[in-house]
Amino acid sequence: MQSYTTGELCILVRGHLQGPDDILIRGVNILHDAGPADIAFIGDVEHARAWPTCTAAAALVSEDLKLTCDQPGRALIQVPNADLAMAEVLERFAPPLPTVPPGIHPSAVLDPSAKVADSAAVGPGSVIGPNVTIGGDTVLHGHVTVLDETHIGTACVIWPGTVIRERCRIGNRCILHANTVIGADGFGYRPAPDGSGLVKIPQIGTVEIGDDVEIGAGTCIDRGKFSATTVGSMTKIDNLCQIAHGCRIGRGCVIAGLCGIAGSVTIGDGAILGGKVGIKDHVRIGDGARLAACAAVMNDVPPGKTWAGMPAKDARVALRELAAVNRLPKLIKALRTSTAQDTGSPGSPAEAR
Amino acid sequence: MQSYTTGELCILVRGHLQGPDDILIRGVNILHDAGPADIAFIGDVEHARAWPTCTAAAALVSEDLKLTCDQPGRALIQVPNADLAMAEVLERFAPPLPTVPPGIHPSAVLDPSAKVADSAAVGPGSVIGPNVTIGGDTVLHGHVTVLDETHIGTACVIWPGTVIRERCRIGNRCILHANTVIGADGFGYRPAPDGSGLVKIPQIGTVEIGDDVEIGAGTCIDRGKFSATTVGSMTKIDNLCQIAHGCRIGRGCVIAGLCGIAGSVTIGDGAILGGKVGIKDHVRIGDGARLAACAAVMNDVPPGKTWAGMPAKDARVALRELAAVNRLPKLIKALRTSTAQDTGSPGSPAEAR
Amino acid sequence: MQSYTTGELCILVRGHLQGPDDILIRGVNILHDAGPADIAFIGDVEHARAWPTCTAAAALVSEDLKLTCDQPGRALIQVPNADLAMAEVLERFAPPLPTVPPGIHPSAVLDPSAKVADSAAVGPGSVIGPNVTIGGDTVLHGHVTVLDETHIGTACVIWPGTVIRERCRIGNRCILHANTVIGADGFGYRPAPDGSGLVKIPQIGTVEIGDDVEIGAGTCIDRGKFSATTVGSMTKIDNLCQIAHGCRIGRGCVIAGLCGIAGSVTIGDGAILGGKVGIKDHVRIGDGARLAACAAVMNDVPPGKTWAGMPAKDARVALRELAAVNRLPKLIKALRTSTAQDTGSPGSPAEAR
Repeated sequence: MQSYTTGELCILVRGHLQGPDDILIRGVNILHDAGPADIAFIGDVEHARAWPTCTAAAALVSEDLKLTCDQPGRALIQVPNADLAMAEVLERFAPPLPTVPPGIHPSAVLDPSAKVADSAAVGPGSVIGPNVTIGGDTVLHGHVTVLDETHIGTACVIWPGTVIRERCRIGNRCILHANTVIGADGFGYRPAPDGSGLVKIPQIGTVEIGDDVEIGAGTCIDRGKFSATTVGSMTKIDNLCQIAHGCRIGRGCVIAGLCGIAGSVTIGDGAILGGKVGIKDHVRIGDGARLAACAAVMNDVPPGKTWAGMPAKDARVALRELAAVNRLPKLIKALRTSTAQDTGSPGSPAEAR
Repeated sequence: MQSYTTGELCILVRGHLQGPDDILIRGVNILHDAGPADIAFIGDVEHARAWPTCTAAAALVSEDLKLTCDQPGRALIQVPNADLAMAEVLERFAPPLPTVPPGIHPSAVLDPSAKVADSAAVGPGSVIGPNVTIGGDTVLHGHVTVLDETHIGTACVIWPGTVIRERCRIGNRCILHANTVIGADGFGYRPAPDGSGLVKIPQIGTVEIGDDVEIGAGTCIDRGKFSATTVGSMTKIDNLCQIAHGCRIGRGCVIAGLCGIAGSVTIGDGAILGGKVGIKDHVRIGDGARLAACAAVMNDVPPGKTWAGMPAKDARVALRELAAVNRLPKLIKALRTSTAQDTGSPGSPAEAR
Repeated sequence: MQSYTTGELCILVRGHLQGPDDILIRGVNILHDAGPADIAFIGDVEHARAWPTCTAAAALVSEDLKLTCDQPGRALIQVPNADLAMAEVLERFAPPLPTVPPGIHPSAVLDPSAKVADSAAVGPGSVIGPNVTIGGDTVLHGHVTVLDETHIGTACVIWPGTVIRERCRIGNRCILHANTVIGADGFGYRPAPDGSGLVKIPQIGTVEIGDDVEIGAGTCIDRGKFSATTVGSMTKIDNLCQIAHGCRIGRGCVIAGLCGIAGSVTIGDGAILGGKVGIKDHVRIGDGARLAACAAVMNDVPPGKTWAGMPAKDARVALRELAAVNRLPKLIKALRTSTAQDTGSPGSPAEAR
């Protein structure tokens, strides 16, 4: 593993160093687990208090905490934002990811018509269908399935167990985590004319995913009924999300875990969805909108707005209603007491008991 | 890919044709993406307005929109319901699904005691355990696992990554999408007698799935503790649902994505569950009941009723409560103002602040 | 399959026998499906009523139901708790689980540096990376992936399709159900300095799972950003849960299906989470706390407390608010009627309409 001196790390994060510049840092850890060759980070008062007694060799510290280093052999690196600086340090210490050597593993099953770039890798047991194309430097780990005529761009990483169905398009530099499913049939039926039940509507569309998209483990993105379900470039989707057929998700969106997005939803660029958000079919979410965790969205959300609640509405309205509900039991009690002093005439609030 | 004339398509959907009957249609697309060899569909006023300026060769249009075709070389097919007609058209244009040729792929691992019909297909790397039986015309894609003594009927399609555990039964013409899990252990424990923690209760039941059932990608249906978890014929389940041990799901139900159904729940025939519905263990949902998306159901739902909310109740009651909560902040403000004009005696609504 | 006499089963569960001790029991079933060689269980009045007319040979019955057996050739075993006694009986009747013989299946792909104990089993098509260690008696079914340097303890069962990423640690006697994903990247990004979008933060931490942990099908546990995501010994997690990076889950917790736990959440020992619970990032859940199904937890939960609702709060407070909302429509109606008798002065509750 790499090692860096405190001086080198301070230059990397454009910080201000307190203490020696020659302490050798070999790893990164959370403050209370960090040892004498580790750098930690201090982003709040609670962690700042723990600094004198912890054993970390060094720490990145947000400058507004005004923490000073008065112990020999230890160092603090002051930065505007310790969290962001830590991300830069992590990039230096990140060990190489497990990978698969370029070429086709002998246990993979490749249709002869598939075109895999020489610098791409297809891992053990992976199955590649007819007319699939896979771009340079893309890595398919083991047990990946890519079906007929799908195109995967360059420099993607597809983790094990992922299934990509026929005729889908994945852009460049995408990451698909383990056991994701791209292009399963949308969920669509019509009543049988004889009343005997439901008839499956063919789902002949596809899924099209832009560049630099990351899709979490177990997430499912269904193919469109007859057009494409699309995910814009730079969008990041967390684990166990369900994206139904015909959704059009913009660029640079962030969608946290366990979100459920029903059919034909449109999400604008740069929208942010907290965990467990649900969106009704055909709803439109504007550019830059934010949906609070667990929001159940039944109506169009204007651009730039923050919505919350179930059913979701403007977050300020939702908070006001929550605060009001919070007061409601006392209000009812007070009304009862006040009307008990009245004549108890018909129609009085006492009826609400 | 198939092509049809506008005249042929008009006969197929039993519609009324405006414009030429000999335009050659080669594909289906959404209105604003459709080109001069595509048919689109128009189901609302917004799409009807876009018709004159779009480039689609033809469109199916709901007759109540009263849309007329006044451009040469283009055609409209009027039908009672454009959405349903489109489903019929899609069936004609649907390209063949990726499949696996009949027989056992050389890389599949089959126990010698398994019985696979000659017309069935077992894809690359699939694993079939002892005494498994697989009916005629059933297709198992790659990486499918079917464990000991499970029976799969005829004409099923099992997509990659699906795991079906021991002693389960899958009916005929079922579709199991990628990475579904059928027959994992139910979630059941008992306190250890010595207080040291929890002891696993063996889950020796099975899963029994009827005919014409479709199960979405990533969905999990647990085996019963000692009887079967059952899913009735013609039921359709979307992606990423969790069906716990001992559930009995009726015939012809529709269960949307991310639903969570706890242990021993009974769901009647023809029930419809919106996305993200949760149902408490042992609850009974009546025939034909409807549960709105995100409903959290804690009590039995009578047949034919629509419930909504968290906790769920009759949808009309739930809506009335939502409307009341909506007015609550103003109500509290008004009560404050009105009591501020009073004497502020103890017990007045002002207490509710 | 095993068989036992009613006398033997009565001794096993330390019960009180009514009826013959020599009825041969060959199986376990629910009361209304049980046949003349089956034992069932009766835990409530409804089932007690069905006893005289059912065909079960015997039943375990909770003694407080005061049920008596007056039919020849049938037996009742009275116990303090029929449900717990049934768990003990189930253990005797449980058929052996499907397994894989010790050794490496010829179709598995094992890095030469991996160390697999002689008594461990690696199933067909499984992929084991460099420097992985797998303890004695552990069974990996088919299509399991274990990446670089991960350690799996002894006597674990890893069901098909499970993916365990690099450098994770799984304890002893753990059960990982089909298609679980352990150690996928946490969901973390930072804004690109040039404003062009989001940059992935490397997730160089790991996942550490204690002993006797069970993890449900499709559940995902992400690796930490730079420390470990941890799950304490004896904790049981149901299907399709999402545990984000840096969570620290205590010992002996029970987490039901479809829970979503955001980053850096701490959960104390013995906490119980109902289905579909969501927890905001960095929240702390105290030892022995209980979270009701569908709770959306935004704040720290004190030890031993029960919280419910969205947003979650003390369950008694949440129930009181629900009851109040329940009354609210009538209250508003009553206030309108009462103020209609007033002068309708500005600021009256009538404004809340």
